[in-house]
Amino acid sequence: MKKSLVALALMGAFGGAYAQSSVVIYGTLDTGIQKTTNTANSATQISKRDNNKLGFRGVEDLGNGLKALFHLEIRYEPDTGVIENTSRPLFQGQSRVGLQGSFGTIRAGRGLTAFQESTIAFEPWSGQPNVAGYMTNLQVAGYTSDPLGPAGNSANRFSNAVWWNSPVWNGFQLNVNVGSKEANGNPVIIGRGTAAAPQYPANSMASANPYSVSATYTQGPISAMIATERNAVETSLWAFAASYKPTTNLKLMGTIVKQDQGHTVAFNNDTDSWVLGLNYTSGPGKFLAGYGQKSPDGQLKTKQISVGYEYSLSARTYLYLDLANKKTPLTATATSDVNQKHYSLGIHHNF
Amino acid sequence: MKKSLVALALMGAFGGAYAQSSVVIYGTLDTGIQKTTNTANSATQISKRDNNKLGFRGVEDLGNGLKALFHLEIRYEPDTGVIENTSRPLFQGQSRVGLQGSFGTIRAGRGLTAFQESTIAFEPWSGQPNVAGYMTNLQVAGYTSDPLGPAGNSANRFSNAVWWNSPVWNGFQLNVNVGSKEANGNPVIIGRGTAAAPQYPANSMASANPYSVSATYTQGPISAMIATERNAVETSLWAFAASYKPTTNLKLMGTIVKQDQGHTVAFNNDTDSWVLGLNYTSGPGKFLAGYGQKSPDGQLKTKQISVGYEYSLSARTYLYLDLANKKTPLTATATSDVNQKHYSLGIHHNF
Amino acid sequence: MKKSLVALALMGAFGGAYAQSSVVIYGTLDTGIQKTTNTANSATQISKRDNNKLGFRGVEDLGNGLKALFHLEIRYEPDTGVIENTSRPLFQGQSRVGLQGSFGTIRAGRGLTAFQESTIAFEPWSGQPNVAGYMTNLQVAGYTSDPLGPAGNSANRFSNAVWWNSPVWNGFQLNVNVGSKEANGNPVIIGRGTAAAPQYPANSMASANPYSVSATYTQGPISAMIATERNAVETSLWAFAASYKPTTNLKLMGTIVKQDQGHTVAFNNDTDSWVLGLNYTSGPGKFLAGYGQKSPDGQLKTKQISVGYEYSLSARTYLYLDLANKKTPLTATATSDVNQKHYSLGIHHNF
Repeated sequence: MKKSLVALALMGAFGGAYAQSSVVIYGTLDTGIQKTTNTANSATQISKRDNNKLGFRGVEDLGNGLKALFHLEIRYEPDTGVIENTSRPLFQGQSRVGLQGSFGTIRAGRGLTAFQESTIAFEPWSGQPNVAGYMTNLQVAGYTSDPLGPAGNSANRFSNAVWWNSPVWNGFQLNVNVGSKEANGNPVIIGRGTAAAPQYPANSMASANPYSVSATYTQGPISAMIATERNAVETSLWAFAASYKPTTNLKLMGTIVKQDQGHTVAFNNDTDSWVLGLNYTSGPGKFLAGYGQKSPDGQLKTKQISVGYEYSLSARTYLYLDLANKKTPLTATATSDVNQKHYSLGIHHNF
Repeated sequence: MKKSLVALALMGAFGGAYAQSSVVIYGTLDTGIQKTTNTANSATQISKRDNNKLGFRGVEDLGNGLKALFHLEIRYEPDTGVIENTSRPLFQGQSRVGLQGSFGTIRAGRGLTAFQESTIAFEPWSGQPNVAGYMTNLQVAGYTSDPLGPAGNSANRFSNAVWWNSPVWNGFQLNVNVGSKEANGNPVIIGRGTAAAPQYPANSMASANPYSVSATYTQGPISAMIATERNAVETSLWAFAASYKPTTNLKLMGTIVKQDQGHTVAFNNDTDSWVLGLNYTSGPGKFLAGYGQKSPDGQLKTKQISVGYEYSLSARTYLYLDLANKKTPLTATATSDVNQKHYSLGIHHNF
Repeated sequence: MKKSLVALALMGAFGGAYAQSSVVIYGTLDTGIQKTTNTANSATQISKRDNNKLGFRGVEDLGNGLKALFHLEIRYEPDTGVIENTSRPLFQGQSRVGLQGSFGTIRAGRGLTAFQESTIAFEPWSGQPNVAGYMTNLQVAGYTSDPLGPAGNSANRFSNAVWWNSPVWNGFQLNVNVGSKEANGNPVIIGRGTAAAPQYPANSMASANPYSVSATYTQGPISAMIATERNAVETSLWAFAASYKPTTNLKLMGTIVKQDQGHTVAFNNDTDSWVLGLNYTSGPGKFLAGYGQKSPDGQLKTKQISVGYEYSLSARTYLYLDLANKKTPLTATATSDVNQKHYSLGIHHNF
């Protein structure tokens, strides 16, 4: 053996002694032509309908039913090539590692909260964050899971958190998710304070540990969810959802959400929302429809109706067309609302 | 079946139901020792000759001659490990998805314009952006395809665009590329305006849709290109190029380009350029040479002569040596020019 | 053949003519729960013990014993998904390409210095940058290899450098590493100058070429290292290290380091440190322990004692527990020290 210390160090760098893992590269590239009237950017644009991701994941069998697993998921804008929203974390999608076994799955890192992950199954656009879909606004009653993140960050993830997904017991599953109080670079949040003494100064620690819990149940054609979450500024949320498949190609779904911002907002701190939707598949075609309302206390309602059509070219590639009309106030204190009409045509490719 | 809603959601996250795609990782790592006299940084440095990239691509067969394809291409600086130019988009190389079939190839996203992609075949350094090569300056008459990009961005791409490459008809191919008018974070461009009222304020929309068209023809040893492009500030360009291979190991090539900046520049708004080059291969060796001039109206000419040598260690790895002399004014209004001498020695590795 | 110029260009983009390389994806995801008292952030947090990386590497056989090799290594924070320290280079780990043959290995780009890479083998936490380990402070006597890097950059790498690792001769290996003088965006370093005339203004070139040299020797159970390094502001360092394995499951190790900051610091410019450590493996368990001191001239000493335990679930996944106590002044001029207690519990997964 002519190995030296640095030869060993180079070995470490050039390829460890452990068996090669099978890292899987996966992702989505979705882009198309869009137009939304009555917005800051109402010109025809090249944009996206779904999140765009490039992910790396792996599962290692540890024996005795135990597995180690990880996910690293880059998010990006396909029309300009930048990372999502130009400034979000490189692994905005998720960065988690954990163990899976008879106890369920335990993970730590950054990812969708238990509530946000569970509610996707009840959203007619499958949680896609596009204008025609309901995920980012009506499906969650305007709630954000990450109020103390940096400006421009996404609103449905916890950083510095742990997750537990229980095993499935007779169709029932529990998902629990708790975050640390660590500061994460938030801008000033005045809240119930004043500009001189804001309730949450810049780069604040959470005033309480954020948590998110969802319980889901599936039996035959019926599924249901109940979930609750409290974010780092102690805004809380309750959500109830159900879906029903009268036939294999029709899925009906609905959600009710109640958000309470009482910890940071003195008056009119409740927001309710509900969304009804359906998916209908016929051969390579899939029809999507939804209607929903968001009702903030003492403010104008937002009402949205959307229809969409997906035409599958394969199990992982489809073309899509969306049409939506959203009647919404442009600001929280507006006394009149506008109609935002949305058109979208594009291609969605999973890899 | 003991699957629950979140079990399904986890399935989605842990690996979709669709057949595993074969994502290909590809790229280039090129670095070496360089020195260029009479520049802001004339010290001996570790730098690059070619663009450095780490890409992910895939092709999915959709049946009936139809294919879906995508590219995501990271660009980086090998000497410091940062993304290209420290601030360019993560997927500076390209981020595009599309379909290929009997109609040719249709793609959307961000990438090289039709003109910029086609002209590479007529540049003696194969479009590499190094000092000895002609691609970034003389080959395009100093033109930029992306004047409304963020400061420091590259000059040969469209964001927010669609591309069509026709099928090849008897050696003839048409390539058409149109961008949206979307704003993309440009710094102020005074143009024909004033500092107080610039022609293009920061983060402007394009004043007209940018487009790029090239037509190419190949028959036996002869190839030719005609191309035109108009960018987001309505600077336009015409380019003519041809190459001839009298023997299989010799390629002669030439380009003529005319740029018109009349929309933003009041006087002397034309720039012409021409480049002649040759490539000669002999066993593992390849000899490169070029000469070119850029002639802006009412300003001093830039003249460049370059020679290079590549020694292949394999089909994807070679060593290189470049020598160049560029006689150029240091600013557009300079009344004298300097000689910039360039030396480069390095390794180019494709993976 | 119906290929056209752009068809060829697309070929180039869609997959080169060269044989497909086997790029290997590798990395580490390590995260856990930590608490360190008497620090700016002493709350319980989700953090990391090891560096987290996602790397791409390849080796190409060029024949005749010659190989080309490259590494591109992303670094990131698993708890928030951002790149390491939020602002480091994308490929903070390394970005290097080179050749390997009978002459050893020659590489260029960015990576760990020869000294920093060699000393890892003598650090009881294997060079991991966690609070219980010694790598980033006591193992190097507080030295930084990259004083002219951007603020927040890591302290153990050269950018713009070349590396040579010799072959192994009877257990002996030489590693030489030289950097260019290129400026790399440093903040102002006053040094022996004044605020008005700092010794190193922002974005300075190095005042001398940085270099790093290590020689290592391994014979049976004994290993040893001698190394010296000089950084871009001419701080220099000498290091001596040795390890001994009396049995296969016990490794004893020690390091002595002397740092001289005389070029930038007028008085008390020497810092000495020493670290002793041991690793003991027993079945799936590994016990780690260390004790060390850092003694800056005319300042209070830092003293650290640490113990750790790793429990392997497989060859590439383990759980860990660390406990440490560090007695240290909080600033260089402090006249009293504090005890920082550290607790850490987490999972380390290689892929």
